[in-house]
Amino acid sequence: MCESNVYLVDQQGEKTLVMESVDKVIPKEGDVYLENIFGERLTVKGHIKEMALVDHSILIAE
Amino acid sequence: MCESNVYLVDQQGEKTLVMESVDKVIPKEGDVYLENIFGERLTVKGHIKEMALVDHSILIAE
Repeated sequence: MCESNVYLVDQQGEKTLVMESVDKVIPKEGDVYLENIFGERLTVKGHIKEMALVDHSILIAE
Repeated sequence: MCESNVYLVDQQGEKTLVMESVDKVIPKEGDVYLENIFGERLTVKGHIKEMALVDHSILIAE
């Protein structure tokens, strides 16, 4: 499966895992909507900073 | 491998493939920087509209 883990990155560059196995990612005016393969949904404040799909990593910065 | 295809979506919802096998995606003030697993690089005008990683699909809208 090709889902990713989503991390929140703070100004110090510290990463916090916010959701695993994310399938859908939809940015929306200051928020990012996430949905994982288990059907869990989460909206995180911030914007997409960087995605590295082969590493299964998506970074969201506030 | 878990890279995605990146499509540009116009206002009619028409999709055009802009790059295959994309690994890195970095949004930057009105542009989206793409890098695929072959080392090819491309910057596309627009913003990320929606990603469906299990379907290997990333949509960019102008």
